[in-house]
Amino acid sequence: MKLWNKQALQSIDQKIERFTVGQDRYWDMYLFPYDIQASKAHAQMLGEVRLISGEESQLLQKGLDQLLAEYEEGTLVIEESFEDMHSKIEFELTERLGETGKKIHTARSRNDQVLVALQLYQKESLLEIKSKVLQLFQCLLELSEQHAQSLLPGYTHMQVAMPSSFGLWFSAYAELLIDDTTMINAALDITDQNPLGSAAGYGSSFPIDRMRTTELLGFSTLKYNVVAAQLGRGRVERSTATALSQLGSTWAKLCQDICLYLSQDLDFISFPESLTTGSSIMPHKKNPDVFELLRAKGNSLQQLPLLLGSITQNLSSGYHRDLQLLKGPLIQGLLESRECLDILLYALPQIQVKEDLLKAEKYRFIFSVDTLNELVKNGVSFREAYQQMGQSIAEGRYQPKNGIDHQHLGSLGQLALEEIRLKMKEKQ
Amino acid sequence: MKLWNKQALQSIDQKIERFTVGQDRYWDMYLFPYDIQASKAHAQMLGEVRLISGEESQLLQKGLDQLLAEYEEGTLVIEESFEDMHSKIEFELTERLGETGKKIHTARSRNDQVLVALQLYQKESLLEIKSKVLQLFQCLLELSEQHAQSLLPGYTHMQVAMPSSFGLWFSAYAELLIDDTTMINAALDITDQNPLGSAAGYGSSFPIDRMRTTELLGFSTLKYNVVAAQLGRGRVERSTATALSQLGSTWAKLCQDICLYLSQDLDFISFPESLTTGSSIMPHKKNPDVFELLRAKGNSLQQLPLLLGSITQNLSSGYHRDLQLLKGPLIQGLLESRECLDILLYALPQIQVKEDLLKAEKYRFIFSVDTLNELVKNGVSFREAYQQMGQSIAEGRYQPKNGIDHQHLGSLGQLALEEIRLKMKEKQ
Amino acid sequence: MKLWNKQALQSIDQKIERFTVGQDRYWDMYLFPYDIQASKAHAQMLGEVRLISGEESQLLQKGLDQLLAEYEEGTLVIEESFEDMHSKIEFELTERLGETGKKIHTARSRNDQVLVALQLYQKESLLEIKSKVLQLFQCLLELSEQHAQSLLPGYTHMQVAMPSSFGLWFSAYAELLIDDTTMINAALDITDQNPLGSAAGYGSSFPIDRMRTTELLGFSTLKYNVVAAQLGRGRVERSTATALSQLGSTWAKLCQDICLYLSQDLDFISFPESLTTGSSIMPHKKNPDVFELLRAKGNSLQQLPLLLGSITQNLSSGYHRDLQLLKGPLIQGLLESRECLDILLYALPQIQVKEDLLKAEKYRFIFSVDTLNELVKNGVSFREAYQQMGQSIAEGRYQPKNGIDHQHLGSLGQLALEEIRLKMKEKQ
Amino acid sequence: MKLWNKQALQSIDQKIERFTVGQDRYWDMYLFPYDIQASKAHAQMLGEVRLISGEESQLLQKGLDQLLAEYEEGTLVIEESFEDMHSKIEFELTERLGETGKKIHTARSRNDQVLVALQLYQKESLLEIKSKVLQLFQCLLELSEQHAQSLLPGYTHMQVAMPSSFGLWFSAYAELLIDDTTMINAALDITDQNPLGSAAGYGSSFPIDRMRTTELLGFSTLKYNVVAAQLGRGRVERSTATALSQLGSTWAKLCQDICLYLSQDLDFISFPESLTTGSSIMPHKKNPDVFELLRAKGNSLQQLPLLLGSITQNLSSGYHRDLQLLKGPLIQGLLESRECLDILLYALPQIQVKEDLLKAEKYRFIFSVDTLNELVKNGVSFREAYQQMGQSIAEGRYQPKNGIDHQHLGSLGQLALEEIRLKMKEKQ
Repeated sequence: MKLWNKQALQSIDQKIERFTVGQDRYWDMYLFPYDIQASKAHAQMLGEVRLISGEESQLLQKGLDQLLAEYEEGTLVIEESFEDMHSKIEFELTERLGETGKKIHTARSRNDQVLVALQLYQKESLLEIKSKVLQLFQCLLELSEQHAQSLLPGYTHMQVAMPSSFGLWFSAYAELLIDDTTMINAALDITDQNPLGSAAGYGSSFPIDRMRTTELLGFSTLKYNVVAAQLGRGRVERSTATALSQLGSTWAKLCQDICLYLSQDLDFISFPESLTTGSSIMPHKKNPDVFELLRAKGNSLQQLPLLLGSITQNLSSGYHRDLQLLKGPLIQGLLESRECLDILLYALPQIQVKEDLLKAEKYRFIFSVDTLNELVKNGVSFREAYQQMGQSIAEGRYQPKNGIDHQHLGSLGQLALEEIRLKMKEKQ
Repeated sequence: MKLWNKQALQSIDQKIERFTVGQDRYWDMYLFPYDIQASKAHAQMLGEVRLISGEESQLLQKGLDQLLAEYEEGTLVIEESFEDMHSKIEFELTERLGETGKKIHTARSRNDQVLVALQLYQKESLLEIKSKVLQLFQCLLELSEQHAQSLLPGYTHMQVAMPSSFGLWFSAYAELLIDDTTMINAALDITDQNPLGSAAGYGSSFPIDRMRTTELLGFSTLKYNVVAAQLGRGRVERSTATALSQLGSTWAKLCQDICLYLSQDLDFISFPESLTTGSSIMPHKKNPDVFELLRAKGNSLQQLPLLLGSITQNLSSGYHRDLQLLKGPLIQGLLESRECLDILLYALPQIQVKEDLLKAEKYRFIFSVDTLNELVKNGVSFREAYQQMGQSIAEGRYQPKNGIDHQHLGSLGQLALEEIRLKMKEKQ
Repeated sequence: MKLWNKQALQSIDQKIERFTVGQDRYWDMYLFPYDIQASKAHAQMLGEVRLISGEESQLLQKGLDQLLAEYEEGTLVIEESFEDMHSKIEFELTERLGETGKKIHTARSRNDQVLVALQLYQKESLLEIKSKVLQLFQCLLELSEQHAQSLLPGYTHMQVAMPSSFGLWFSAYAELLIDDTTMINAALDITDQNPLGSAAGYGSSFPIDRMRTTELLGFSTLKYNVVAAQLGRGRVERSTATALSQLGSTWAKLCQDICLYLSQDLDFISFPESLTTGSSIMPHKKNPDVFELLRAKGNSLQQLPLLLGSITQNLSSGYHRDLQLLKGPLIQGLLESRECLDILLYALPQIQVKEDLLKAEKYRFIFSVDTLNELVKNGVSFREAYQQMGQSIAEGRYQPKNGIDHQHLGSLGQLALEEIRLKMKEKQ
Repeated sequence: MKLWNKQALQSIDQKIERFTVGQDRYWDMYLFPYDIQASKAHAQMLGEVRLISGEESQLLQKGLDQLLAEYEEGTLVIEESFEDMHSKIEFELTERLGETGKKIHTARSRNDQVLVALQLYQKESLLEIKSKVLQLFQCLLELSEQHAQSLLPGYTHMQVAMPSSFGLWFSAYAELLIDDTTMINAALDITDQNPLGSAAGYGSSFPIDRMRTTELLGFSTLKYNVVAAQLGRGRVERSTATALSQLGSTWAKLCQDICLYLSQDLDFISFPESLTTGSSIMPHKKNPDVFELLRAKGNSLQQLPLLLGSITQNLSSGYHRDLQLLKGPLIQGLLESRECLDILLYALPQIQVKEDLLKAEKYRFIFSVDTLNELVKNGVSFREAYQQMGQSIAEGRYQPKNGIDHQHLGSLGQLALEEIRLKMKEKQ
């Protein structure tokens, strides 16, 4: 009838349904075990406060265990007839337990069901990522110890400036991971508050025991206020995303350094062939695809907090369907972060460090500041020392020092690895 | 000579200088006291490790105190002949103390001087903001107590759904501020690490005592690794910005609710005339400019972490002049956050809450879920109860309940304000 | 061996490969026909300039046609043994044509092969979206005509301000779509430049005829400079994303209005049940899930240009593997935009508009500005008129006018739909 | 009284006023001439349609001219007693012309007054920027011609790959500027639509002649629909910002190349001392501060469209005070873009290009692909040729070709500068 609607009428309802369901079934497969866990706690509590009978509670919990077993065996599928895992679970319970199955929905709403599953999922994912960050930290410190003596040019403005070392370079990134762990801990703190019981965002008239589900689910505390619990949707995800983006920026910068150091012009490091791609007619070429992709993935994560935040921006309080779109990017961000850390943990230990880099002619003035400082330490005034140095360089008389004498805490000669280890330990 | 360069030749160097200096002198006026503080600690330490004499150390510290006094009196100006406050300070010390004045620059670089001043500034600013957040939290809880009994429609999908209350609404935002405090604490943790001594980003050959300056400046710990300290530039700012953006999103959403609640169509609240702008020919109109601007400023803060992060993205390790552009947006973000909190603390207590809102005909079904739950609690099966309700509504027989009976923790009837207060207390 | 690498050694190479391949095979299925199209043009040209024989050229083109037929039948699959469609296509051609099959790669690189396929794909997708935008434009103008006389409150600051109408409201969004078409045209212009022949980003020593492939592929012009062609990767995608984000912001705002207008408090419009979800115990509730998701998808598109732009930020010129990550978000953005437009084109015509809205008591002052203007037009000074009005309102004597008399171009009484239609026509 | 409000009561109103006014007076000084221009056209039209007398119209226009003269002399100041320039202008007209002065506000609102001034300002600024882009384009083409023969290594993955040239490099950026001009033209098209007459966003009952003001102001067309005109606020600014961000990304990448090419490790180019900062004790050091700041400013502009877009996100149609915050970032973005282009136009022509770069040992395999292609062109099968080459390289027998033979359109040997010039010409 209308010009702009040529689709056959019979497909229309499907179209709308497909649009509103979107990729929910797909993402829900990641959340499934957490929904089961929360549903079991809910069933247990319902029985304890006598909203259902003890027997009903037992039946529901067994039914949920069975569904989890099927999920773990890989036999559970959310068919197209269900819009999400929540309706699938409820359907299966009702199929198997009759009227009792439906009681799982007592004093609960889809809203707090999603909230609690998402928060449990985030908590576990963040803990796993935190543990991988610790492994990466240890890997970097080992590399720092191993290459503590290998010098590296230090740049400012991309210009050769001062002597640095692989020891400094590796452990710098290790120390940055401590700050990333601080952010992960903050995100953990924020997700670790039970939202279950907020129902559709305004609580209910059922006398539920929210302290009990908090305890059963291992949450440290509750998001007490039911409106606050609902408003957490989007906020919790953003805190998680913030931790991922901070972490991603760290590994992206490390990979940026690696890609630069691998170029023929700097040529500071190399990797075995399994980690680079080359060509027999361009034997110098070692394309660092792995590190480029790590960099790009770390950089992509930077947008994630803003993306999640902007979906809820200027929405008034209370649930809106917009929130559904938070799921995909959040889960993807967590999966990618984990994968990137795994790849780094595999690839980084294989790094090969080149020696004697500072002997190259192009780095000949890299010790000039140290020489100048030497004069100053020996009592020559700065102005005088600077003049002497400038003159000896201009006249070609300047001979770089052979060694370096950086001894203060955190410098080339005193990497402070133990202190850095201790600082990280306090974050665990 | 060239077509594209019509400017007179004599103005050229100025042009380049003006471009590179940018607004540094302006922003530096905010950082001035922190540079003085760090310079004093540095001078003290230099004397203690005998890199300068005890007398020189004393002279430098007195000179710095004097400059701070002039700054506080408002007589200190960074003239156009200086590119920033650092050169101004050094110039003044040399003017006043001769060769001794120059020694303040021993074992230090512009880079770590900026790093330490910025981190001290962020620390103090965040602490101040944290304290204002606590005041806002208390204000919201007082309002919640005061209006605990006043009901409000609760929305989902912007559709009237369930009974809520002003008590719930106010304390929801209070509880969210606890999470914002968690993020502020994380940012504080990250900025609270002394970078001084990292010099140009690679340390130096001077035997400085970084533990001592850490102690003198009241930092909890050091950023040990000098390369990590330099890489902190941009990262620390972003952590601060992350805390501000999280906080900004909270007050923006509160203001979004306020603007909506003030419209003639909802008409849930009002404010005195000093906080809204009206017109005698449209007496219903109360434009909430203050809350709209608060909302917009909160929303603008959302981009800040990404802006700061993107300035350093894909820059290799080591200093780049790009970093200079971090200063302005960071300082502006901190100033605006403080101002917004002040305005909120002034405006929010003046809110006037309307009573008996739920009596309006348009909200007549708002208790239907509660009525249904009542039937279920009385043993009617959900399916049966739902059918009964639907029928009574369809036949116009449905009479809304007079009261509400939400009694579980965190609901209308049990706001859990004490528990919320305790949770915030742990974050202080 | 290493603590942080517990995975079995045999799985390692696979792991790296899986990581670098990522989702390329999936996204490439969208690009397949465009790669075939470009490959055919390349083969044709190679034959014409005698880099291969005429017979070889024919064989290659037929082989490519056959692959396209298999793709369209749905029998073509990019197996896991291929890292992308390009290697699949080359493999199949070689399987079927022997040494001749390999010659498709003469004077071409993976880089320009991806460039050209992506640009052809963007061109076709943008044209399709442009045509849907035109349909939406027509739909909005029809609705505007249909409801030209139905009044609506006009808001400023979310406060009731002045009379508006559904006629104005619908055609406002139509006129905004003209600007969105301007941006689509700019993006089309940018993608409509042949990059083929740039090889790995630096051209080649083969005497290819780039004018010929430009003509064969229907591009309006070439990206002449081979380095510019390579630098286009990321830039072209971002231009496309910019057009999508501008468009997305338009429909998101329309949907924001719709969701607000659907609330019980405003209650200006409604939709049939198939487009909203309700409940028999809350019969007033009509959740606008479809429009909320449209809004969220439109809002999500806002980040897309920045996401794409940031992946290439601060990468020096020349190919980097990071660019691979542009594909997924770009294709997803195009698919989602198309889907959202389809849904809007289906849903919007079903809107039901309520009449006599301005008779509600809460809108009683909405004509006061018009009344005031009437006095002014009749010669009363503004000051005097304002005083009169204020007094009559204060004393309860004010009677709103019955009608409205907005007659200037673009106002309630003169919607200028023909002029708007003409402006859009010029953009086609 | 309240704990959280310690400020003295007397300062309160000022505080709120200072907050709502913000920096409007400052930014308005940039918009002043455009408000005068639009006000004059409005006064002219009011006279013509007899809403005011011909004499009043003349008086108003003369008064406005006088204010503009004072602005241009620098004597006009928007005092603190005015919240913005609009109230200042109205005040001054009333002071000078009595009741007639007030009539400038007939059939106009603050809203469309700001809209039209902002759009006129954007139009003029974009035209100026477009002209500077053209100058930069010409500068790059001149440099390309001048250095057409100077070879440069071409990189992929930051690995040395193929021969490139300064001729290619300079003209690549020139060709990209054509796309940037396409975006500027789109933004111009969008801002070039007269919004005046939309009043508060819903038109008025005055019989104004909007075609006439459109003509007087030199706009190509109108934004007809008054609601669309108001919705343009934020949208027009974002289109402008989009053009700036696209342009900024171009110069940022050029500067990224420059900073890399200036490092001691690549050492491809240099600049005179006035454009870099060095040190006599590190004579190799040439810090490219100017180019780093240009890069950072170009990168910062990337966020601008999103910042502007997000301020209006999810606001329903009609004016909201949030829009005020668009002004500052927009004006700043335009000013910075203009400044950056000026600096580039000054600095870039001073570039010094190094010769014979490809003779370095590290680039010895850069011609290997060309050699391979040579064999293929001579009839050797690719497989055979690849094997021969690989072997000769492995055995150390490979001798790089002396010259290069890239002759196709857009390659090293045929830069297609005329074609590129023509393409740009079509965009003017």
